[in-house]
Amino acid sequence: MIVVKVGGSKGISLDAVCQDVSALVQRDERLLLVHGGSHETNVLSTALGKPPRFVTSISGVESRYTDRATLEIFSMVYVGKMNKLFVERLQQLGVNAVGLCGVDGRSIEGARKAAIKVVEDGKRKVLRDDFTGRVERINTELLTLLLDHGYTPVLCPPAISYESEMINVDGDRAAAVLAAAFHADTLVILSNVPGLLRDVKDETSLIPHIQKSHLKSFMEFAQGRMKHKVMGAMEALEGGVSTVVLGDARLEQPIQQALQGRGTVIR
Amino acid sequence: MIVVKVGGSKGISLDAVCQDVSALVQRDERLLLVHGGSHETNVLSTALGKPPRFVTSISGVESRYTDRATLEIFSMVYVGKMNKLFVERLQQLGVNAVGLCGVDGRSIEGARKAAIKVVEDGKRKVLRDDFTGRVERINTELLTLLLDHGYTPVLCPPAISYESEMINVDGDRAAAVLAAAFHADTLVILSNVPGLLRDVKDETSLIPHIQKSHLKSFMEFAQGRMKHKVMGAMEALEGGVSTVVLGDARLEQPIQQALQGRGTVIR
Repeated sequence: MIVVKVGGSKGISLDAVCQDVSALVQRDERLLLVHGGSHETNVLSTALGKPPRFVTSISGVESRYTDRATLEIFSMVYVGKMNKLFVERLQQLGVNAVGLCGVDGRSIEGARKAAIKVVEDGKRKVLRDDFTGRVERINTELLTLLLDHGYTPVLCPPAISYESEMINVDGDRAAAVLAAAFHADTLVILSNVPGLLRDVKDETSLIPHIQKSHLKSFMEFAQGRMKHKVMGAMEALEGGVSTVVLGDARLEQPIQQALQGRGTVIR
Repeated sequence: MIVVKVGGSKGISLDAVCQDVSALVQRDERLLLVHGGSHETNVLSTALGKPPRFVTSISGVESRYTDRATLEIFSMVYVGKMNKLFVERLQQLGVNAVGLCGVDGRSIEGARKAAIKVVEDGKRKVLRDDFTGRVERINTELLTLLLDHGYTPVLCPPAISYESEMINVDGDRAAAVLAAAFHADTLVILSNVPGLLRDVKDETSLIPHIQKSHLKSFMEFAQGRMKHKVMGAMEALEGGVSTVVLGDARLEQPIQQALQGRGTVIR
């Protein structure tokens, strides 16, 4: 089993990812695809006069401030636009894809954070109207049912809280929990960089291999959204996934290249 | 088996519909829910500077002009917003709902109309960049799989064409083809009127009963969107569904009241 997460930043080729998923599925590889949609969410939020607001937790992790109105915009983009673009393209390529967000059949479930502590303009604040959470549980029964009958699940946030509210969760961490729940051999996390870089401004400074036991010491190189990816890698490895590859979504055959070791391979 | 279609017009209570679905599912009723989203689509289209355009076919049936940009807005609202609101509310009420559009697993499939002939400002025109179609095929295998494992499918347009393009299809006709494919006992079509009215301006002019064989002669009373509902009723009855009820979505327990005969009952 392979779990593939593809980011939602600018410059990522949906088509190359879908072509590669199709090639793997036709070789009877069991595969789950998880995708993002952050760039398009920023575009729609701005068009609707509600520009995105990012907050940084006191531990230094950045996330989207998600009140209920933002959550509905988020869901429109992730589920209604990006997910359907992936499913439509996969169907064209002969993959019987089924798009689900975490709310559907409680496929991705977690705890809503009742209050999040953030630092904004140097000041500590507590946000209470934020619908974000942390993925903890996967409905493997539903996803297995689909896989066993020839369907390829295409998953995305939002997830569902234990109180059955939609919640914004990080897609990388969701993919990590999915990979762990299925005891996947490999988790591939694709984004618009070649992998983890020693110098974020220098694409040739790629770190090609990291031993699982040393991963924590590489956290210092993870900037911005890469932090979620390295944290996701850690969660997946701790959950029993044997290999995580941080790969480049901008390549041709981005998944197969990552599986062949292109990117940052962590094991 | 019951198929329930709930419209997407203003004034329809999502909550009352979900409460009623929950009551029926808890009594082990097999149920498929199909919903619309036309009002919200108009709102988002307008907010994004692409106000809706409705066209009338030469046979007098009105539909939304759906170029690719409109289709993506349509999908954002139907799948990303409305579908998730239904699924979230149903999950809160203890129903393990799974939201799917017709593209997912090819659940609702049909032929795209290569060109549609319309009348606009009194002139005949042919539109070729329109992504609308006619529902012809249902993936009953996927929906049965979900129902047999305790999930309640919540379905909406867009559907998928034989060439695997997303297409806008009429929700009432989709529900009719679904009901026929499952040999449903009853198709309930709920909207923001009491049923088929003799006089569209007078809610007391409800036609309570129609014999299936006489339905065609009642077509003259169907104005605007009601035309799709009566055509859907006809398709369902011809497809083997025993009863169709055109009910009022604005009531408490709108589905159970329709099943008890409130509205226009056609058999």
